[in-house]
Amino acid sequence: MADDFILAERIAADSVAVADLVLCHVRLMDDSRYPWLLLLPRRAGLEEWTALNAADLAQLSLEIAQTGAALQTIAVFDKLNVASLGNIVRQMHVHVVGRTIGDESWPDPIWGRGARIPYAPAERDRLVGLLGASLA
Amino acid sequence: MADDFILAERIAADSVAVADLVLCHVRLMDDSRYPWLLLLPRRAGLEEWTALNAADLAQLSLEIAQTGAALQTIAVFDKLNVASLGNIVRQMHVHVVGRTIGDESWPDPIWGRGARIPYAPAERDRLVGLLGASLA
Repeated sequence: MADDFILAERIAADSVAVADLVLCHVRLMDDSRYPWLLLLPRRAGLEEWTALNAADLAQLSLEIAQTGAALQTIAVFDKLNVASLGNIVRQMHVHVVGRTIGDESWPDPIWGRGARIPYAPAERDRLVGLLGASLA
Repeated sequence: MADDFILAERIAADSVAVADLVLCHVRLMDDSRYPWLLLLPRRAGLEEWTALNAADLAQLSLEIAQTGAALQTIAVFDKLNVASLGNIVRQMHVHVVGRTIGDESWPDPIWGRGARIPYAPAERDRLVGLLGASLA
């Protein structure tokens, strides 16, 4: 039930709210190294892709595409990376990340490498505003 | 067009064919460290999640769930990892991987870490048979 959706503490601490789409709560990772969104299906207790029903599976995939397109409105990048891992935070969350040739982790994945570099608050707010408008 | 779909050489070299679903060609990574499938939408020139149309987006997500369930018929694992990266091989491919607490890379992602350990041919053939039957 959507009413029972509770955001994992670690995700809440590392990111800021951007929008609520039909299925997913969307957040901007507060990490200026990469344009990076998190999508969290608002389904209580959800951990695995395989636990979504057919309608939610379709909607999730659509919202990954929508957020990937929204990222292109705030940043120029070479490759979109999409991943649902959950090895550390089990609550299902999908990473949608713009990667640039030569970025800190290129061509390896970004997770578990280096330390998060928070945005300046004004820049973070600006990006949240642009992303929210793009996803509205 | 599906007729123009050509498998990237590196993917062909590192994996074996399992099945063709409605959208995706499915392959088993020939790496005994992890139960690991690759899904390749049969769309010529496809690189990005954002380039799929709505019907293909829905089908891809469904096939990720189907292949994740198929992996559970050949292995016991703790967490499913799903990822479309493409930083090295640009042809769109989705990794569907069963992760086990304490495996070689846990809890980090598996990509770019360690060396592939091919299956013994008989074991590889056995797994392909089981997966093919599960996905039929």
